[in-house]
Amino acid sequence: MARFEPKNLDFRNVAAETFGRQQAMRTLGISIARLEPCEVDLAMAYSHEFTQQNGFVHAGVITAGLDTACGIAAFTLMPAGSDILTVEFKTNLLAPASGERFFFRATVVKPGRTLCDARAYAERDGAEHLVATMTGTLMALARREPANSQGRVLAPAK
Amino acid sequence: MARFEPKNLDFRNVAAETFGRQQAMRTLGISIARLEPCEVDLAMAYSHEFTQQNGFVHAGVITAGLDTACGIAAFTLMPAGSDILTVEFKTNLLAPASGERFFFRATVVKPGRTLCDARAYAERDGAEHLVATMTGTLMALARREPANSQGRVLAPAK
Amino acid sequence: MARFEPKNLDFRNVAAETFGRQQAMRTLGISIARLEPCEVDLAMAYSHEFTQQNGFVHAGVITAGLDTACGIAAFTLMPAGSDILTVEFKTNLLAPASGERFFFRATVVKPGRTLCDARAYAERDGAEHLVATMTGTLMALARREPANSQGRVLAPAK
Amino acid sequence: MARFEPKNLDFRNVAAETFGRQQAMRTLGISIARLEPCEVDLAMAYSHEFTQQNGFVHAGVITAGLDTACGIAAFTLMPAGSDILTVEFKTNLLAPASGERFFFRATVVKPGRTLCDARAYAERDGAEHLVATMTGTLMALARREPANSQGRVLAPAK
Repeated sequence: MARFEPKNLDFRNVAAETFGRQQAMRTLGISIARLEPCEVDLAMAYSHEFTQQNGFVHAGVITAGLDTACGIAAFTLMPAGSDILTVEFKTNLLAPASGERFFFRATVVKPGRTLCDARAYAERDGAEHLVATMTGTLMALARREPANSQGRVLAPAK
Repeated sequence: MARFEPKNLDFRNVAAETFGRQQAMRTLGISIARLEPCEVDLAMAYSHEFTQQNGFVHAGVITAGLDTACGIAAFTLMPAGSDILTVEFKTNLLAPASGERFFFRATVVKPGRTLCDARAYAERDGAEHLVATMTGTLMALARREPANSQGRVLAPAK
Repeated sequence: MARFEPKNLDFRNVAAETFGRQQAMRTLGISIARLEPCEVDLAMAYSHEFTQQNGFVHAGVITAGLDTACGIAAFTLMPAGSDILTVEFKTNLLAPASGERFFFRATVVKPGRTLCDARAYAERDGAEHLVATMTGTLMALARREPANSQGRVLAPAK
Repeated sequence: MARFEPKNLDFRNVAAETFGRQQAMRTLGISIARLEPCEVDLAMAYSHEFTQQNGFVHAGVITAGLDTACGIAAFTLMPAGSDILTVEFKTNLLAPASGERFFFRATVVKPGRTLCDARAYAERDGAEHLVATMTGTLMALARREPANSQGRVLAPAK
């Protein structure tokens, strides 16, 4: 797997800070398990709150973990002052998201107009099982100011 | 747009009941706004709890709404005793998910090995804005018993 | 369906000229059947030369028709001097591509960083059958000079 | 990368025979370069006949190579008497398909309802460049008889 160089030596702090501003990650109980240039692992405990009709984790929640893993992985290669935008992703659901813990592992395939691959694994009875894959396109853009409580931008992007 | 006939005359009750068993929908504050054969609209109020770093609704949460809209739309055409499985979906994110309310509108393009199209709209200042699209593949399978509190199947699918 | 305005009043000539430079369209026997702002139909006769193992048109050939239909549809909205680049597409194959003629119909869903929807139909026994769908992302870029006989750029993009 | 076992010990002959019945591969000048259980490489020389407006190989032709590579890779794991059906694929186009030769490398990620990953590389000046990726879903079905000259099935699938 090709490796790419961070453009921002402070990438760990900046990526962690961006992750920390994702309120959805806190609500879903997702945290950073590993953070390297162009590679990120996130972890999430099973929660009944986020299940579909059969008690498995909802595909949208799995997608949230995969998408943020891709975003943070892409972010490790961005210049300072960047924000990250997901253009599109494709998710394949391979097995029910059944387990005690879940991992979302993303790798940058190509930086710039970034292509990222990610996989979701369920930890069950001490073993990991592949449950979903994602490929996504992400772009850097200049960081914008936070939106207010209804998602409206208070200050325009520069 | 072609229309397809429900195979289960009780499709409304069955679809609503399946939706009701999705704990994630309750947690995300998503409800059914309209339910017709092969067409479903879901609605969700903005919540800061499910936002990404700029205060917009997280792409995974938008995807959860789109995916369940597709699932329930597909479900309206399924025979009695079915469960629904998402095989894959592709989401394109067109604009920040910024607004007071969000709608997820799904239509079945082809029944059977179902292809479903869905769109997410943000209601902002009294107008609707297209923020995301999904195309997904879904399959019917025999309904399985609910899993226990960690997503483990207690009784095998018949 | 929302309509968008061409930025180049000469869009018909420019789009047809770009299509005409696609040698692959000539080789595959694909031609423009209809060309409107943000909408394009292409047509192709069945040819045994482009079939897969069961005598149906190969999915890659169907994709070529869908992708060029999207590209030309996006092109109708581009400013003068543009070229068009496909970033990604997703194709769902719904039925065997079996028929005497095929149509590829594309519509721009969102201009700019363009999202395009397209559908492929097989004409068989006088009726049209949906055989595939595509959603794709396309971008405008400054037009580059043609490449030489091995696809190498002779003059860099401006 | 996990490895999966062929169900048909004669998988090489059967896969090569299926590939040989794809007239489109012959027309596009694509051949098998390597064939292993769950992994296939195809090769194609540059041809002006299959280019888009800038002299690069058309995305649909790249997709044809990737799709057949996935199909043959999936086929190496199928039981005897199977045919292979592509349900959907997603292609990301990362760089212009410019080069003297092209390789399409596919790997099965998950057998059964098969998920396959593939990458297209351009050989240019003695080096390989990643130009596109695909993830696709494929299914086995009972082999059907070949269609006649307009892609009509002469004998129904058993």
